[in-house]
Amino acid sequence: MPIIAKTPKPPYYAVIFTSLRTDGDHGYEQMAGRMLELASKQPGFLGLESAREELGITVSYWADLESIQKWKENAMHREAQKLGIEKWYSVFKTRIARVERD
Amino acid sequence: MPIIAKTPKPPYYAVIFTSLRTDGDHGYEQMAGRMLELASKQPGFLGLESAREELGITVSYWADLESIQKWKENAMHREAQKLGIEKWYSVFKTRIARVERD
Repeated sequence: MPIIAKTPKPPYYAVIFTSLRTDGDHGYEQMAGRMLELASKQPGFLGLESAREELGITVSYWADLESIQKWKENAMHREAQKLGIEKWYSVFKTRIARVERD
Repeated sequence: MPIIAKTPKPPYYAVIFTSLRTDGDHGYEQMAGRMLELASKQPGFLGLESAREELGITVSYWADLESIQKWKENAMHREAQKLGIEKWYSVFKTRIARVERD
């Protein structure tokens, strides 16, 4: 996967996920790798960019809102979301945005 | 500035700037600090989130497209953009997106 996502001509959608981690791994790295692999196989997935210092920012790009909704409801992803809330993130915010220009 | 931006109820706008740095500082850190200070004083500025590993992601939030356009055209910011292209970034991409939900 290219480090800067090769997205198509706008419009498309971005999910901006910003988070602070709790201390320790608790299975996070393994699950993050699995979720990236799984997300990249979903219909409408266009790419993903990620960086973490204290704050972590992950931006995933999608063709449309329907693709985002289906990924949100994916059973394995729902399990990961649950663990995220319980174990991995002390605070997080998800924003869904329509990319209009690049 | 809070590490996760305290943005208002959507809609508002996000500028997603992803970049790879060149080697060395070349005045980058100082300018980055100045630009953050300057941006935060602009009309319509709502907040900023930033992280860098190999890839850097900076997301700034704005009330509307007019605020983003004015910041883009700010004289000191234009100088920083020029240095960014010449010295600091080997590759970068800017996306402008309308945040619809959070």
